[in-house]
Amino acid sequence: MRFDRFFVMQPDDAIAYAKERGFFPADAELESEEIGDGNINYVFRVRDRRSGRSLIIKQGGETARISDAFRITPDRVRIEYEMLKRYNELAPGLAPEVYAYDEVMRAFAMEDLSHLSIMRRALMEHRKLPHFVEHITTFLVQTLFYTTDVAMDPKVKKALVRRFINPDLCEITEDLVYTEPFTDAKRRNDPYPPNREWIERMIYGDDELRREVAKLKWQFMSEAQALIHGDLHTGSIFVDERETKVIDPEFAFFGPIGYDVGNVVANLMFAWANAGATMEDEAARLDYLHWLEQAIAGVVDRFRAKFLAAWHQDARDPLARGIGVAEDYVDRVIVDSAGVTGLELARRIIGLAHVKDITSISDPEKRLKAERTLLRAAKVFILDRYRHLDGSAFVATLKTAHREEEKAERRR
Amino acid sequence: MRFDRFFVMQPDDAIAYAKERGFFPADAELESEEIGDGNINYVFRVRDRRSGRSLIIKQGGETARISDAFRITPDRVRIEYEMLKRYNELAPGLAPEVYAYDEVMRAFAMEDLSHLSIMRRALMEHRKLPHFVEHITTFLVQTLFYTTDVAMDPKVKKALVRRFINPDLCEITEDLVYTEPFTDAKRRNDPYPPNREWIERMIYGDDELRREVAKLKWQFMSEAQALIHGDLHTGSIFVDERETKVIDPEFAFFGPIGYDVGNVVANLMFAWANAGATMEDEAARLDYLHWLEQAIAGVVDRFRAKFLAAWHQDARDPLARGIGVAEDYVDRVIVDSAGVTGLELARRIIGLAHVKDITSISDPEKRLKAERTLLRAAKVFILDRYRHLDGSAFVATLKTAHREEEKAERRR
Repeated sequence: MRFDRFFVMQPDDAIAYAKERGFFPADAELESEEIGDGNINYVFRVRDRRSGRSLIIKQGGETARISDAFRITPDRVRIEYEMLKRYNELAPGLAPEVYAYDEVMRAFAMEDLSHLSIMRRALMEHRKLPHFVEHITTFLVQTLFYTTDVAMDPKVKKALVRRFINPDLCEITEDLVYTEPFTDAKRRNDPYPPNREWIERMIYGDDELRREVAKLKWQFMSEAQALIHGDLHTGSIFVDERETKVIDPEFAFFGPIGYDVGNVVANLMFAWANAGATMEDEAARLDYLHWLEQAIAGVVDRFRAKFLAAWHQDARDPLARGIGVAEDYVDRVIVDSAGVTGLELARRIIGLAHVKDITSISDPEKRLKAERTLLRAAKVFILDRYRHLDGSAFVATLKTAHREEEKAERRR
Repeated sequence: MRFDRFFVMQPDDAIAYAKERGFFPADAELESEEIGDGNINYVFRVRDRRSGRSLIIKQGGETARISDAFRITPDRVRIEYEMLKRYNELAPGLAPEVYAYDEVMRAFAMEDLSHLSIMRRALMEHRKLPHFVEHITTFLVQTLFYTTDVAMDPKVKKALVRRFINPDLCEITEDLVYTEPFTDAKRRNDPYPPNREWIERMIYGDDELRREVAKLKWQFMSEAQALIHGDLHTGSIFVDERETKVIDPEFAFFGPIGYDVGNVVANLMFAWANAGATMEDEAARLDYLHWLEQAIAGVVDRFRAKFLAAWHQDARDPLARGIGVAEDYVDRVIVDSAGVTGLELARRIIGLAHVKDITSISDPEKRLKAERTLLRAAKVFILDRYRHLDGSAFVATLKTAHREEEKAERRR
């Protein structure tokens, strides 16, 4: 037993591990490479040269891979594994299969999704994903509605709340999404230099914005509404034209549903800004922007429709079937989603964790304009979130921000 | 060691237990009586005849004292003990001192408060309590503000949330406060027969009321705002003209702050209805009603003022000191308190757990009128909670309901 005590594996260890755990026959000719590109975990692809069969082993240490100084609970690996198992039950086909969790090695094995692309990359290649809206809204409703108090036995839910309390990873979100972009509290924000002064004036200088962000923050920190993914951006989704697979739920905990919905929506908006700034052929650009706008509106509207359908079919609370109860509930979730859309747009531009959709825009003037458009929209999503009740309102805010930025540009 | 395995004690066992645990000298002449009057736990007073010193031993089994069929987690005893310890730290002097917790015997010892009266009884004797408003608002702010995300280290708070998850006792509240009074879902409601038909029409028949109750229910079930008492009615408070002591926090969990504030307010309103119906001397009655109205308004307004003062002194979150952030927060808590005031008024009249303030009104016409007045007010507190932002609004709703019921009575 080489794996009865924790150590950080190398690719050869992953081969030995995969054999010892019986994932491959003893005589398989295995090859392994470490393909992790995040800052925290190790990801090994192990492949049998003869059969071509492969799987992924994901391992997390007590410190981040980038620095031993950055301690982060290994419990996140257990949370990720348990979440992926739940996804396989609640939303079959929309997450990788998982095979086994190993508490000692802080590792688990799962399906290899190498035939798919990370969604952010696919969108930056301006690919259309004809099934994405249906897949992701099914995923959202199946994983979220069914873990609310409306649908779940309240005692089972409370046991799950306890099981998924996730202080370390919540702290990251509380700091990087809900605090620093609006206060620069730890002086770690990293705005694009030509936009720095504009951001100081338009964002740090807005007391009302910060007051609304505070309300959203208290909600994130205290509302155990459903078992959310907690980091559902387009870098946590594998896609191709037929499939959609959600990965990386290590931030999972009981939080507001709108956090997941808003992250999906905001990241589609990054793709929209990227396409607007980088696609040279006008007809192709307009066509792709239109597809993205339909996807944004579709996520909101199909989520709402499926959420209500699930409610009317499976709500178990005695109050849930009253007139307007479901509609009030989902309206509030969509308003929350608008607030989170604004937070995610702002933090990816202002804060320390950027997105490639924006940083890869090489023309400085176009990048500046893309950032300001999204930040103008972010403010509206946060301040006027209560009037964002359907998909068309989300798209309208984005397009209005774009027109306003064009006007401002002409005045410069 | 007679107490190394759990059994339900008799008074003589409590004497032996108190000696073995060293609460009294070995040669003390102890007497003991069981003074519990609830349905669930056993409460022994143990007293040394010579010194007069006494203490309380509270014990809870795996089943309720009224019936072995009614199982309820003994973890509630641990929760109660830990909460009382916290109260001694956060709000010294406003809860009984506690001496020791015994996991095996599911028991703990605490200060004997026999020199005080249960507040419900004191109010039914129409006693004024000149320090109550200051005491209870200090208690509320000290125990509640300091367990919010605003004031507490978020990781410490999440560990506490886990520690105080309380499924069995929350279920009781979810059923008896948030569901059954508005739906009669389990056919256990117990309205005063002359009021039954009126309640069916005015409460069960109101879809909008049930929709607003549903929102409050989801909030109770999912908002881990602060470590609340969870059952802060006037039967959980000992008083005299100088002292105030909060007891019985076995329902404690992280829930909405307004749940505690609203329970205090509603139970003062039961006293108001009792005084109005039972005090024959008009001058004395008007004087006492006026005192109660000042207490009701005072709880709301002094809570608000002290909450803001605590916030401005001790808020640690970087967003907490923004313009209007504290005011938005406490306004929302007071609105929540109005909703809970309405729920508590309704459930004590309609549901299965009544209050003596009302059931002891012997004149049927006066009881009927008191109940309808409070139910009229309850509906306004729930439906129009957003306009209840200060104490005068709470009192105004109560007095308007009273005038409306007087008009309705004249039409009968």
